[in-house]
Amino acid sequence: MSDKIGFVGLGIMGGPMARNLMDAGYDLVLFNRTRRKAEELAEDNPAEVADTISELARQSDIVITMLPGPPEVEAVVAGEGGLLDSMHQGTLFVDMSTSSPVLARRLAEMGLERGVGMLDAPVSGGDIGAEEGTLSIMAGGEAETFERAKPLFEAMGETIVHVGESGTGQVAKAANQVVVALVLQAVSEALVLGSGAGVDPGKLIDVLSGGLAANKAMDVKREKFLTRDFEPGGKVAFHHKDLGIALETGREYGVALPVTALVDQMFGALEAKGGGTWDHSALITLLEAG
Amino acid sequence: MSDKIGFVGLGIMGGPMARNLMDAGYDLVLFNRTRRKAEELAEDNPAEVADTISELARQSDIVITMLPGPPEVEAVVAGEGGLLDSMHQGTLFVDMSTSSPVLARRLAEMGLERGVGMLDAPVSGGDIGAEEGTLSIMAGGEAETFERAKPLFEAMGETIVHVGESGTGQVAKAANQVVVALVLQAVSEALVLGSGAGVDPGKLIDVLSGGLAANKAMDVKREKFLTRDFEPGGKVAFHHKDLGIALETGREYGVALPVTALVDQMFGALEAKGGGTWDHSALITLLEAG
Repeated sequence: MSDKIGFVGLGIMGGPMARNLMDAGYDLVLFNRTRRKAEELAEDNPAEVADTISELARQSDIVITMLPGPPEVEAVVAGEGGLLDSMHQGTLFVDMSTSSPVLARRLAEMGLERGVGMLDAPVSGGDIGAEEGTLSIMAGGEAETFERAKPLFEAMGETIVHVGESGTGQVAKAANQVVVALVLQAVSEALVLGSGAGVDPGKLIDVLSGGLAANKAMDVKREKFLTRDFEPGGKVAFHHKDLGIALETGREYGVALPVTALVDQMFGALEAKGGGTWDHSALITLLEAG
Repeated sequence: MSDKIGFVGLGIMGGPMARNLMDAGYDLVLFNRTRRKAEELAEDNPAEVADTISELARQSDIVITMLPGPPEVEAVVAGEGGLLDSMHQGTLFVDMSTSSPVLARRLAEMGLERGVGMLDAPVSGGDIGAEEGTLSIMAGGEAETFERAKPLFEAMGETIVHVGESGTGQVAKAANQVVVALVLQAVSEALVLGSGAGVDPGKLIDVLSGGLAANKAMDVKREKFLTRDFEPGGKVAFHHKDLGIALETGREYGVALPVTALVDQMFGALEAKGGGTWDHSALITLLEAG
């Protein structure tokens, strides 16, 4: 508990994750691009706010980042005046952003040269999982590095898996996002087929839930599919970004992902129509008239 | 229980379904293209074997068909010397084959003209569900016709849903097959992405099962995906036929099913490669080298 934890990125996910660490008794130093969010979080908690990421890195024994995606991770970690420049030897760096496996491995190598151990540890479970501390955390990196971070993970998540070497946490997250996207598309096509041919969609979901077609996403998104209230939940724009990472990773490893590519294009179309901030179950709207 | 039940089509599904009806005390008359199967089933049971479908239809108060697909249903039911020609007024006709909604509605109309009530009542749950009497049964047709058939359904299945008017049972089955196909493709793409990038597939399935990506098909097919033993289960050729019905139905009702169309093509490719009798989870082999 004497480790000082630097936390960078206090958005809809990072904010509650940092709070859960503080609630577990960890001593935090915070940085957020919009400084106000860090200050608010430090108000009721024994945490400091850093003026720069360099200042945060110099003070911290463990640094956690929770950023929107690969460009932000690359800039904040490996850019000029970035985190890696100011971390001291022996620092543990944990990137919990959903980022690219290739970038994760590159950052791990850069860390190694500086004596900084790195984990890629993206999460699944959304803002509710972040708030309740019930996230799934998929970590890639050395086993002993994972063991060092594990108590922190346990303060933020419930299902904590050491997937394998550096990059494999991000691979698992990409694979997760592939399945969720394609399942949402599957349910969308089934529902428009049913509605078009005169079947009540609620009854159809009931029937499908009884057999081999049953799936968690249909269960969780049931009301969104039925009411067309696409308040997120998981946003189209983020899921589109995630499929971009999956496709880039497939290309890197010579793996063809034909249906992922198609659903990626559909998310792109939905974003172009102004649906970037809708819940990802809004895929169904692309198949409907009006 | 005094109704005489004619059962046509005693294959891998129909055979055990007929046996469950006999075990429940129903009096059956059997017909199968390969007569031997009917005779074997009649050996230990108080059932008769009909020489022709006309003979079966004349003797039966309720006729059930369980045939490979729309062409067989059309020939056996509406063809020259088919079932409808010999059914007497008041007969109940239940087609439990996976067939087309359009054909189901046409046959229901033909039945109506002859005073024959019809239900389309396809099933889900495979040969194991048929044997154990735990099928899901999705029925379309008049409510009172459904009520008359319900005791028979209860001898064959566990989840029994009256979906709506004629054809809607087949629509629900088509929608079910759309979801199952796309979910199998989703899991296939996730697993090849993972394997290509060095993640253990068993560990990946574990991670995915913990969150929004969880689904029944991944659960049921886990060992097939991991061992590549594609002993069916649900056969590629049948699922390919089912997606053909879904696409034809979509076309009939002006519904576009872009990803279903793509996975339909993949099943076609798999059949062309000689994989028609493999389990449908063999979709994954199309994405792999070798």
